[in-house]
Amino acid sequence: MARKRLPASYYIDGIKKGDRLVLSQAITLAESTRPSDRELASTIIEELMPLTGKAFRIGITGVPGVGKSTFIDAFGSFLTGQGNSVAVLAIDPSSQRSQGSILGDKTRMDQLAHDPKAYIRPSPTGGSLGGVAQKTRESLLLCEAAGYEVIIVETVGVGQSEVTVHGMVDFFLLLMLPNAGDELQGIKKGIMEMADGLVINKSDGEYEAAARRAMVHYSQALRLFPIGGSGLRPKVISCSALKGKNLNAVWENLQNYRDRTQENGYWQERRQSQAVEWLEETLTHQLKELFFKNPTVKEKLGTFRQMAASGMHSPIHLGEQLVKEWHPDSSENSAKIAKDS
Amino acid sequence: MARKRLPASYYIDGIKKGDRLVLSQAITLAESTRPSDRELASTIIEELMPLTGKAFRIGITGVPGVGKSTFIDAFGSFLTGQGNSVAVLAIDPSSQRSQGSILGDKTRMDQLAHDPKAYIRPSPTGGSLGGVAQKTRESLLLCEAAGYEVIIVETVGVGQSEVTVHGMVDFFLLLMLPNAGDELQGIKKGIMEMADGLVINKSDGEYEAAARRAMVHYSQALRLFPIGGSGLRPKVISCSALKGKNLNAVWENLQNYRDRTQENGYWQERRQSQAVEWLEETLTHQLKELFFKNPTVKEKLGTFRQMAASGMHSPIHLGEQLVKEWHPDSSENSAKIAKDS
Repeated sequence: MARKRLPASYYIDGIKKGDRLVLSQAITLAESTRPSDRELASTIIEELMPLTGKAFRIGITGVPGVGKSTFIDAFGSFLTGQGNSVAVLAIDPSSQRSQGSILGDKTRMDQLAHDPKAYIRPSPTGGSLGGVAQKTRESLLLCEAAGYEVIIVETVGVGQSEVTVHGMVDFFLLLMLPNAGDELQGIKKGIMEMADGLVINKSDGEYEAAARRAMVHYSQALRLFPIGGSGLRPKVISCSALKGKNLNAVWENLQNYRDRTQENGYWQERRQSQAVEWLEETLTHQLKELFFKNPTVKEKLGTFRQMAASGMHSPIHLGEQLVKEWHPDSSENSAKIAKDS
Repeated sequence: MARKRLPASYYIDGIKKGDRLVLSQAITLAESTRPSDRELASTIIEELMPLTGKAFRIGITGVPGVGKSTFIDAFGSFLTGQGNSVAVLAIDPSSQRSQGSILGDKTRMDQLAHDPKAYIRPSPTGGSLGGVAQKTRESLLLCEAAGYEVIIVETVGVGQSEVTVHGMVDFFLLLMLPNAGDELQGIKKGIMEMADGLVINKSDGEYEAAARRAMVHYSQALRLFPIGGSGLRPKVISCSALKGKNLNAVWENLQNYRDRTQENGYWQERRQSQAVEWLEETLTHQLKELFFKNPTVKEKLGTFRQMAASGMHSPIHLGEQLVKEWHPDSSENSAKIAKDS
């Protein structure tokens, strides 16, 4: 595919000006699997780093049916109405088996999609969760450099994506249903533990009483967890995205969280540890790239896979061997390490 | 810590004889973080590989409160009563935040713990899910080599452990409650998709009617998924572990699954792809070991972490740089790769 190559300065200048088209083009570069695109994206982002870090990064999760899209549409519009510019990203790793992306287009957020102060980017498709996460993180930085003040990262899909989104935001918001049944069914304890705040959505009409009960219920449930590094106990707020009810309370809670954690230092601390985690994930990714693209490894991997599949050799033993063959120092190193320990 | 080193032959001979003490010692070696222990474990397992692969590997999952331990205690005892030897392993990655192991001792399975035909190994503690998974897989092979005919791997904890257990067993069984509420609340779609069979536990006393409804409900729900590689639609069976009711139906379903998939080749295919996956996970693990134990990397990593934490440099850019500094060929390679693609 012959594609016109533009210099890094084109993207950098365009993003600095807040040009949405150039922003989209830069995100496309970051999402590309072509090494030359990836390298260009990496250069652009490194150059723009001083302009990043100023947005409020908000992660939003919740079970299917909780109304995530409706909530983001309403809440995002509320925020732009308050004068904020808002970018919406999503993490949607393909399901383990079906490999299909569940959804991910702008039509889910009708109001926000036509808002000049909002930018919605459909989730990158395909690839591992790690790959998708890296792309989303880069998109987040690019949106920040383009001047967006609030970045919403939505989890779509199942499994580890909550952990991943939690690892890239300042505030992790768990959306809940007013009538979700008893005993925290449906919400894994681990996700409750990660939440910085809970919002009971659909608190309107016949569900208002249920929402009040749910608020009491979840407030009590949250008291069972130790208070995290933020020093703040997560709040439970009810709202109706559909009716635009109580969205201001949600925003006030978020702002309060920001003010308090910027004061006590947790905000900065969390950002720092997230950046370090990201570095470590990149290292793993780069190591694998280097290894699996090595000609010797490429040549031998097939045989090693067959040997593993035969069931007559330990996959661990095989893995150790192949790494040794690739890296001349590894056997020497591991002997040295064994001696040291 | 000075520990008496025994030769590989001690472990190999002991396991071949089915000596439980030696089996436990070998598993302890496999769980060790000392390189010399790990190397010895790897050698032992490679040597024992021809004796592995004969067991029925069953993964069991379900939300907290579903009665996993009671079910495994009852079902395992039923199996030993039928003349089978049974080993029980668990995967319990520490929760992301609390870092604490939830449970994991033999007292949860009182009957089985005193059964001479059963072997229960508490889950390895600490470390990443990947590390825990590797240890459990090695324990599984060691148990097989020691002659255990059924290996039950229990998921404890949250998040990705279901995917991990699914990746090491022949049959993935999802335990359900009869009164778990509507609309599959609490059971993520991804886990339903992975299940090879559902068992509604606690189908006794006042819950019998609810269990019948749940059976209909889940049978219908399962019809919404495409039939997987096994060619078999997952069955829903109700039982009561507490009353020992209908455990034979659970076992018949498992045996039927084994017979049918061994006939249509899916059984072998699944084992083969699991072994290949395991090889690939080992490669990643080994690469990281090699990289992070390198003296130059060790020396520079601190500075790179600080640079990432400053927010003034892209963690991806930093990661790329550090890998390049470690591996002299990497910049040349990546240039070549870029040209090729």
